[in-house]
Amino acid sequence: MNTLVDLRDCRIAIVGLGLMGGSLAGGLRRRCREVIGIARRAETIDLALRYGLIDRGSTHLADGLDQANVVVLATPVRSILEQLATIGPFLSEGCLLMDLGSCKEQIIAAMAQLPEHVQPLGGHPMCGKEVSGIETAEPTLYQDRTFILIPLPRTSDGALGLGRQLVEAVGARPLILQPRQHDRLVARFSHLPYLLACALVNMAATTSLTDPAGPQVAASGFHSVARLAGSDVTMMLDILLTNRDEVLKAAYDFQTQLNELIHLVELDDDEGLRTRLNSVRGAYSEMER
Amino acid sequence: MNTLVDLRDCRIAIVGLGLMGGSLAGGLRRRCREVIGIARRAETIDLALRYGLIDRGSTHLADGLDQANVVVLATPVRSILEQLATIGPFLSEGCLLMDLGSCKEQIIAAMAQLPEHVQPLGGHPMCGKEVSGIETAEPTLYQDRTFILIPLPRTSDGALGLGRQLVEAVGARPLILQPRQHDRLVARFSHLPYLLACALVNMAATTSLTDPAGPQVAASGFHSVARLAGSDVTMMLDILLTNRDEVLKAAYDFQTQLNELIHLVELDDDEGLRTRLNSVRGAYSEMER
Repeated sequence: MNTLVDLRDCRIAIVGLGLMGGSLAGGLRRRCREVIGIARRAETIDLALRYGLIDRGSTHLADGLDQANVVVLATPVRSILEQLATIGPFLSEGCLLMDLGSCKEQIIAAMAQLPEHVQPLGGHPMCGKEVSGIETAEPTLYQDRTFILIPLPRTSDGALGLGRQLVEAVGARPLILQPRQHDRLVARFSHLPYLLACALVNMAATTSLTDPAGPQVAASGFHSVARLAGSDVTMMLDILLTNRDEVLKAAYDFQTQLNELIHLVELDDDEGLRTRLNSVRGAYSEMER
Repeated sequence: MNTLVDLRDCRIAIVGLGLMGGSLAGGLRRRCREVIGIARRAETIDLALRYGLIDRGSTHLADGLDQANVVVLATPVRSILEQLATIGPFLSEGCLLMDLGSCKEQIIAAMAQLPEHVQPLGGHPMCGKEVSGIETAEPTLYQDRTFILIPLPRTSDGALGLGRQLVEAVGARPLILQPRQHDRLVARFSHLPYLLACALVNMAATTSLTDPAGPQVAASGFHSVARLAGSDVTMMLDILLTNRDEVLKAAYDFQTQLNELIHLVELDDDEGLRTRLNSVRGAYSEMER
């Protein structure tokens, strides 16, 4: 089977039906020939069918894969790495194999080891939420979001084109990046904010032990930082440890920035602090344009 | 003039018509006898009248104050402190004088120095936003939010009762706290999150200098932490420097929590990190209930 050039003719298998995989399935259904859902638990398949997110499903990884023109791995990063080591022989000739993992260097290296008949393409949609599981899936999740694509040197133009069609079919914007560049950026824009939320929630919880009025004082400012602490732990653990070097570099850079701000407060430096806060506000406006 | 016991009979003067004062004016209008708006610039008064937020206005602080049964100072914290030093003689007998400042120890100390004929009551509504100015005012801003009230030993039951009526008139929930307790809690739940947002935005801006793809990678997780960096600088500068000791204690405690998380990542401690992240997630759920 050669890679089909039109997504509408494709059978697409999605492995992992949580927030990300379930939403992708729902967004792709009826925009392709068939969506096959693969999950560990039969209950998840039942829910995905009931919610109308998939056409059919299976609890066996290999099941249905040989009929798929496109396979998307939508599990936590370390599960993706395990699946990449064994999935090759089950895939059809020319099959486009994508993933939705949040760290790309290790995944792209593992994809490079796939049998030659497979067309690999790294993927990372920038639309996580602090909830998880098939119950939270929404077919519109990807709408208007950036969906990063990371081709390998061996990825054909046709396979990359099919990947783009998939991204655009769910309303997202493709952005081509290099794996190391990707991992550096997401460490700073996505993985670090999670660590900050965790540290803030821990501090707030400790404070609330001695003053139960704490949570009543929490307003939208607190909640918008803290909400990331509700993210799926297995997913985030895989991300932090797989993207460890970049997460640590981002964390050290953040600490330097925070220390400078704290120092200006310690010095009671009215003008210095005003200048710094104005420059931050300017940078924020620039970023939000 | 004695303090009136029913808010509906009161003339209310609001000093400062930004996001907080303008929204309060709009929320109180038609729920009291008259809302008088006081702002430095005539343009602000014109806009407040055009938006229907006030019944009448003035650019002179003293103007209309002697006819008001309730006066609310809705300016940055250090402006409130300056106003408290001079406003006393302009206020009518029994006038309820409130403020909306985010730090309370210094304000309550200044309120204690007011002439005896004034009834002071500290206030702090937990409903800030990262926008500012009369153009952003919304009469529903206070709806369903916590509105902290801090009575002084000299505050009469009648004055506190009138303050409660004002809070409830705009749909907020009153919460009585002590000044020091207030400043400690808001440093942790409100002021520190702003500093974290600033440090994150600075780090992201630096990253984007060398990789312009940065902002494209920013998803909702980044934005929900970063948005506080758009807050009004004069307001936040006053807060950070007036509540300096508690902000610094909160920042040091946060650094300790973040260092512990970073250390688990450095150690590549899979089980230790999972345990910690699960406990954070539990604390977050508990807090959001």
